[in-house]
Amino acid sequence: MSDCLFCKIAEGEIPTELILEQENIVAFRDINPQAPTHILIIPRKHISTLNDLKADDAELIGELILAAKELAEKEGIAESGYRTGFNCNADAGQTVWHVHLHLMGGRKFNWPPG
Amino acid sequence: MSDCLFCKIAEGEIPTELILEQENIVAFRDINPQAPTHILIIPRKHISTLNDLKADDAELIGELILAAKELAEKEGIAESGYRTGFNCNADAGQTVWHVHLHLMGGRKFNWPPG
Repeated sequence: MSDCLFCKIAEGEIPTELILEQENIVAFRDINPQAPTHILIIPRKHISTLNDLKADDAELIGELILAAKELAEKEGIAESGYRTGFNCNADAGQTVWHVHLHLMGGRKFNWPPG
Repeated sequence: MSDCLFCKIAEGEIPTELILEQENIVAFRDINPQAPTHILIIPRKHISTLNDLKADDAELIGELILAAKELAEKEGIAESGYRTGFNCNADAGQTVWHVHLHLMGGRKFNWPPG
């Protein structure tokens, strides 16, 4: 059994409200939201960091971005705007070692992004 | 002829040092860098915002993320870490209406991302 928190969420071992369930990806709300909408979108497949992506993961990673677009529409933030991002390794603040896309919106964001 | 700044860069109409040239994407340095490494990675195809993505753009968008991974290795920031992100519309601070992925690294980043 995997010790990965996000694998357990994707597999239903840790009860979590999934707001999107697709063949290859799931999405749920960040437990420490930094904006009115703050959703994490993850592949079901375990990939620790962006550095571990293989060439044939391109479509899977693109699906995460497309899911962000769909969720932004559902959340009513598509027109006002939203920020999506991946953090890789310590400098970026990655703390869970399973690739996850942050989708944030519902407020104005500053520049630089952290 | 397109009036889009990033289309012109991709097509060579505006002389710019391209640090990555692939069939579907190009990359160049942000003219107002917010980190020691700050690169923009764009599709050659004109897509105004993430809201304009179609389902069959998944692989193309994934290629942008894979290019970020490759460029992070070349820039020597893969292990220390990097942040990648798209901004969509006004709340997120999008100012050029051609989808572009920010790749930033070489320093520590704060949370939230702006």
